[in-house]
Amino acid sequence: MFYTDGKLQYPVRVEKANPLFARALQQAIGGIEGEIRVAMQYFFQACGARGDPKFRDLLMNTAAEELGHIEMLATAVALNLEGAPLSLKEQVANDPISGAVLGGMNLKNLLSAGLSAMPVDSDGVPFDMSHIYASGNIAADMVANVAAESTGRALAVRLYEMTDDPGMKDMLSYLIARDTMHQNQWLAAIEELGGGQGVFPIPNSFPQDQEQQEFSYAFLGFQQDGSDPVAGRWSQGTSIDGKGSFKAGSIMPMGEKPQLAPAKPRGGAQKEQM
Amino acid sequence: MFYTDGKLQYPVRVEKANPLFARALQQAIGGIEGEIRVAMQYFFQACGARGDPKFRDLLMNTAAEELGHIEMLATAVALNLEGAPLSLKEQVANDPISGAVLGGMNLKNLLSAGLSAMPVDSDGVPFDMSHIYASGNIAADMVANVAAESTGRALAVRLYEMTDDPGMKDMLSYLIARDTMHQNQWLAAIEELGGGQGVFPIPNSFPQDQEQQEFSYAFLGFQQDGSDPVAGRWSQGTSIDGKGSFKAGSIMPMGEKPQLAPAKPRGGAQKEQM
Amino acid sequence: MFYTDGKLQYPVRVEKANPLFARALQQAIGGIEGEIRVAMQYFFQACGARGDPKFRDLLMNTAAEELGHIEMLATAVALNLEGAPLSLKEQVANDPISGAVLGGMNLKNLLSAGLSAMPVDSDGVPFDMSHIYASGNIAADMVANVAAESTGRALAVRLYEMTDDPGMKDMLSYLIARDTMHQNQWLAAIEELGGGQGVFPIPNSFPQDQEQQEFSYAFLGFQQDGSDPVAGRWSQGTSIDGKGSFKAGSIMPMGEKPQLAPAKPRGGAQKEQM
Amino acid sequence: MFYTDGKLQYPVRVEKANPLFARALQQAIGGIEGEIRVAMQYFFQACGARGDPKFRDLLMNTAAEELGHIEMLATAVALNLEGAPLSLKEQVANDPISGAVLGGMNLKNLLSAGLSAMPVDSDGVPFDMSHIYASGNIAADMVANVAAESTGRALAVRLYEMTDDPGMKDMLSYLIARDTMHQNQWLAAIEELGGGQGVFPIPNSFPQDQEQQEFSYAFLGFQQDGSDPVAGRWSQGTSIDGKGSFKAGSIMPMGEKPQLAPAKPRGGAQKEQM
Amino acid sequence: MFYTDGKLQYPVRVEKANPLFARALQQAIGGIEGEIRVAMQYFFQACGARGDPKFRDLLMNTAAEELGHIEMLATAVALNLEGAPLSLKEQVANDPISGAVLGGMNLKNLLSAGLSAMPVDSDGVPFDMSHIYASGNIAADMVANVAAESTGRALAVRLYEMTDDPGMKDMLSYLIARDTMHQNQWLAAIEELGGGQGVFPIPNSFPQDQEQQEFSYAFLGFQQDGSDPVAGRWSQGTSIDGKGSFKAGSIMPMGEKPQLAPAKPRGGAQKEQM
Amino acid sequence: MFYTDGKLQYPVRVEKANPLFARALQQAIGGIEGEIRVAMQYFFQACGARGDPKFRDLLMNTAAEELGHIEMLATAVALNLEGAPLSLKEQVANDPISGAVLGGMNLKNLLSAGLSAMPVDSDGVPFDMSHIYASGNIAADMVANVAAESTGRALAVRLYEMTDDPGMKDMLSYLIARDTMHQNQWLAAIEELGGGQGVFPIPNSFPQDQEQQEFSYAFLGFQQDGSDPVAGRWSQGTSIDGKGSFKAGSIMPMGEKPQLAPAKPRGGAQKEQM
Repeated sequence: MFYTDGKLQYPVRVEKANPLFARALQQAIGGIEGEIRVAMQYFFQACGARGDPKFRDLLMNTAAEELGHIEMLATAVALNLEGAPLSLKEQVANDPISGAVLGGMNLKNLLSAGLSAMPVDSDGVPFDMSHIYASGNIAADMVANVAAESTGRALAVRLYEMTDDPGMKDMLSYLIARDTMHQNQWLAAIEELGGGQGVFPIPNSFPQDQEQQEFSYAFLGFQQDGSDPVAGRWSQGTSIDGKGSFKAGSIMPMGEKPQLAPAKPRGGAQKEQM
Repeated sequence: MFYTDGKLQYPVRVEKANPLFARALQQAIGGIEGEIRVAMQYFFQACGARGDPKFRDLLMNTAAEELGHIEMLATAVALNLEGAPLSLKEQVANDPISGAVLGGMNLKNLLSAGLSAMPVDSDGVPFDMSHIYASGNIAADMVANVAAESTGRALAVRLYEMTDDPGMKDMLSYLIARDTMHQNQWLAAIEELGGGQGVFPIPNSFPQDQEQQEFSYAFLGFQQDGSDPVAGRWSQGTSIDGKGSFKAGSIMPMGEKPQLAPAKPRGGAQKEQM
Repeated sequence: MFYTDGKLQYPVRVEKANPLFARALQQAIGGIEGEIRVAMQYFFQACGARGDPKFRDLLMNTAAEELGHIEMLATAVALNLEGAPLSLKEQVANDPISGAVLGGMNLKNLLSAGLSAMPVDSDGVPFDMSHIYASGNIAADMVANVAAESTGRALAVRLYEMTDDPGMKDMLSYLIARDTMHQNQWLAAIEELGGGQGVFPIPNSFPQDQEQQEFSYAFLGFQQDGSDPVAGRWSQGTSIDGKGSFKAGSIMPMGEKPQLAPAKPRGGAQKEQM
Repeated sequence: MFYTDGKLQYPVRVEKANPLFARALQQAIGGIEGEIRVAMQYFFQACGARGDPKFRDLLMNTAAEELGHIEMLATAVALNLEGAPLSLKEQVANDPISGAVLGGMNLKNLLSAGLSAMPVDSDGVPFDMSHIYASGNIAADMVANVAAESTGRALAVRLYEMTDDPGMKDMLSYLIARDTMHQNQWLAAIEELGGGQGVFPIPNSFPQDQEQQEFSYAFLGFQQDGSDPVAGRWSQGTSIDGKGSFKAGSIMPMGEKPQLAPAKPRGGAQKEQM
Repeated sequence: MFYTDGKLQYPVRVEKANPLFARALQQAIGGIEGEIRVAMQYFFQACGARGDPKFRDLLMNTAAEELGHIEMLATAVALNLEGAPLSLKEQVANDPISGAVLGGMNLKNLLSAGLSAMPVDSDGVPFDMSHIYASGNIAADMVANVAAESTGRALAVRLYEMTDDPGMKDMLSYLIARDTMHQNQWLAAIEELGGGQGVFPIPNSFPQDQEQQEFSYAFLGFQQDGSDPVAGRWSQGTSIDGKGSFKAGSIMPMGEKPQLAPAKPRGGAQKEQM
Repeated sequence: MFYTDGKLQYPVRVEKANPLFARALQQAIGGIEGEIRVAMQYFFQACGARGDPKFRDLLMNTAAEELGHIEMLATAVALNLEGAPLSLKEQVANDPISGAVLGGMNLKNLLSAGLSAMPVDSDGVPFDMSHIYASGNIAADMVANVAAESTGRALAVRLYEMTDDPGMKDMLSYLIARDTMHQNQWLAAIEELGGGQGVFPIPNSFPQDQEQQEFSYAFLGFQQDGSDPVAGRWSQGTSIDGKGSFKAGSIMPMGEKPQLAPAKPRGGAQKEQM
């Protein structure tokens, strides 16, 4: 169950409303690296967590935090949009040189939402909930969460660099810090689950003698001229999961050209295919 | 540039065609954990890789491999679909007991593709290329790749458990092995990039003294009753990135209820909002 | 800001796990009438509410409730999925007559989520956040909310009729009651905003003398034979907003066939179009 | 069956082509408040209308009208796009000061459609037919239609305010009038169906003694501190449907933390979850 | 402008309601080969047609026809759904052997639409209007229309083969005939536009001396071993557009490995990329 | 199986980086006429090709080519983005007159991809793999391919006209030439399949005596006033497939207003519908 107090986790202040920056902030709400994604991802992972209940608690707790981040950003977007003109005439009056404000906005923020935030990204594309990765495998989920917080912090840093507004910089410096924590938090959860050698390969419950082990630690090359692929840590030494040794080499097809049966007589193909 | 020889990377054999398993295999083609996703993700990461060119080469090489995996799976789907009835009458004739084959298929595989594979998931939902994570940050990309291969291997394991067909089990045991390698491969790339303490927090180029460091390693609790959140590795000890110490505690709102300006006079709101 | 206690708003009990009913319940999570929709819709309406702050409070309060409903339903889905077979073999063993369980499920619940709930509808289609209607007009939002709760209650009733599980019926009888309240709640908000004659036409801030008033209360007929359209309350009497009188009649085109300029010489059209 | 005469319902005139306004008009074609939505929504509601056939006739008649509105707007978009430059060079030549026309357009209108309208919104996002609400419940459909026409009129008003072109203002004053009528028309249909007390709660066919009536008219508070939620018409007095009395209070969880079974042994989870 | 008479273009009769066939028919409504697609495609092509107005008339006339086909199919879906059970209990009672009807349906047809048609395909995926191809090039549009009617007729044939219901077979034999006509109709339009040698390459307005003509009629081989690609009409003889001669050969890369600049210092990349 | 050499099929050179042109080029990557579409379309058609294997080889060969075109364009996008400012301040410094660069970009190219290409169109909308037309009918596939290359060449021509950069013009002149070839190539395949009279109507395997032949070559008019539809090649003479003669005339409905059964008692409708 969720509760609210209607207040903001951290102050949101905009000194000079900037509709173009409102558009950029939308990426942090409805982009694939945004806050809806992490809030809902942690929420659904929590709802499906099987095994030790502490992971459910951990996930649901942070889901609650991320909901508050959407709220902060939606407020920031609305405040930045207060500088938008409502008409082409007003635009030219306010901004005789560039005349580009309306063109640079997500117009839906004005036309569809009346100068409010929307669950869309910085190009106005709505968030699609297929981006909620909740796999039923707790370790895979934790890796997905590190990934989400990594792209999320890269985005927050880019927004921080984009703006000069002190209020916005302050808010973003807070969100960047939270992303630092959340990267570490999910890495810590991986450590609790056994660390690299305990966790990988994910899922660790599949008996590896049932996979084609000849190929389990082989770095295969797909270079047109049959040369070896680029060397690196991935081509020699003990594998990161500690269960094999890397080797490298080029590949040859082990299968032939596939042969499908002819098309069925009444299946809508051309008669030449039958 | 890409080249082909039209052959399969590994043999694809179906002993008893099973249209329901064809539907399940579609998840490995067009699901968010599927092969289109990794092929295109590595491809776009390669195209945008800035810095040491070895990462571009590494990524593009494995993109080529994954294209071959789509080809293998698409062949497996087509072969499994060869057992599908084309009519409700034929269905009942072939399968008097269950009568459920047509109902259990993705009907589009029959109606739209004529018993072939499609770039859709196991419920017929087309793959959406927004799932291609290519962030411009090479470390974030590598973490996203570990995540993709983790959910990918979980999926391959589930498919392996679902089928009894020896040919399909053989093919999947190969794909599972490749996922083992690819998890290790991207983890090895993270090691080359500096390992956990060199890489995190991602991006490592942002000066941490510009984030609100008081909150960078704090595990905040959002429990309704103000109690501490669930303890674990994430609440004490050195942070995983080695740059701070975890602490824990409950949170209080630092901001107030937000106040937006009244609606503009001619902006399509109700007059009571102005 | 949001808080949680990890508990369920109302008990969720499944006596006999039924994977097909799990699929049906997904509609109440990720369908367009589902709980993600209302939770996020009230949340975004709250974040953008301008004018009297009581509407922000009202909306955010109920957003918190709806988040708890997603949690209840996600739990119900996971419990119902515990009856699913993991293999085609297991399926036939458990269910020799129908053999239809796997075919009738959203396969993604098994393959992608490991027997957990997902933010998708009953056919496995992910929820698309464009369904969050938050218009910046508080009255339009309230009408959209009545609409959402109306389709939502119709869905809950259909689920109630579909199942025989006493636990599920109990949970749904609670959710149906909440939908009753929420329909009334948003209707009450419309009453506070002035009721039918104060609120309509939405937005009430546009001066009606600037619309083509001849057509503001005319029920126009588009019958091929020029006959009058079907009569009803909409064709006579005072209009519902109290600002006009209904009249009816067939229409004739007031415009001509449109004429566009020829294609530009170097714009990618055929030369015959230029 | 549908017929056409190729003419416009109302004249469409553009005095000074403005590609940015063309982009804004796209919202009225392919936005969620746009004309494709209402045309197709009334059409599908008509096709599925069960019960008194007058509602089918009413809906199909207005579907025909809305098709004509798409036609008007598509013409307006094409005419406004006739001012667009085809090259960056031409842009600078025509518009030395702002140089922003191409950047402010939906580029697809030029690149993909050759200066024509498309079924996309003002940010170039294609219309998704999941927005066609046709529930099989005639009252829910009518409420959804009032909602559609309310956001639709808000949009038309915003477009009216945005433009200075007399032709466009004239066209929009007509469309605004039609939205006034359509709001009233669907409200009139609700009156024919019994008005507020006859229609609500929707569906009115579910026996209310089967819902958890203790919660049917209770305004529940989800405030973190347990305080009462914001008071209003929704917290006291007779309910709007006339079937209960509003009451208010804070909520306590009635359920416990959910407990799912451990993960199945061969289901792709980590072994720690089993 | 559009008009209606509410009648069906051709009789729609269902002798034995079959919910699974209703699902299949949904592909002909909301599939990419379905009637929404052609209706809206011809409509938008008409609205954007520049040049000789006869093409606008031709397109809008057939758009009206296709709207009537959606209506026929939506009726057929609703009639077929009348055989669906509303509960799992009713299902078992009616259908003791298979028990598969609910599992084989698009559940949304029941849960979301109350046994009516929806603008979705046979797997419940909503139609996405990005499939409306209207390019601003009249010849490209006509080819796209031939393509649409070709896949459309293949679909109608598959539906015809799937069903045994005489009413459905009758309706489909009509729709198949109309698809025959429409394929021919758009081919006839191509003939009016100049036929193969006049029309191709599309667009015919681009001066071919500005393309890299060495590659305009060369069938390039991308075989890994450098061998010639498969021979056929495409590798020798006069080109189909009459403007060149086919030749064939394998390709070598003409460009080098691409080199991007290092990442910018404050752009969210890792410092190793800078 | 696929191989790579990491090199570009044709040189990609940008003399003056232009972020707005980067946005335009995105349409050629992730637009519906773009290279992802053709690469994946030919790939999936190849994987499902039944009948003479030469078509599989032809399709897979060209799929490999198109993958290389995505690579070229992604490189071109990244190079053009190198001119983008990272901050609003930098923007004004570099571009004091227009200040429109950031507003005119797809912001995701900066915020989400760090100045790299993405699989999105010119308005930032991700490519949706439902655009992969692979029908199981080889002739329908070939027509779809001609259509794809026709809109693709129109797009390339528009991009060629838009830019003044000599490097970009050179690259596009190559891609335009390849589109010329590919249009001809798929037309040549149609000729191999029997040409217009052998191939049409597609599918040619359906016995035409089972369609309602009275309507197979009739150009029906849907004019509101019952007049004949616009005359042309489509209304007289031998049909293009050589199997009938065109005729023309207006239509009358052959069916009545449809009648659905009343709503079921417990199906979530209003009681007035039952």
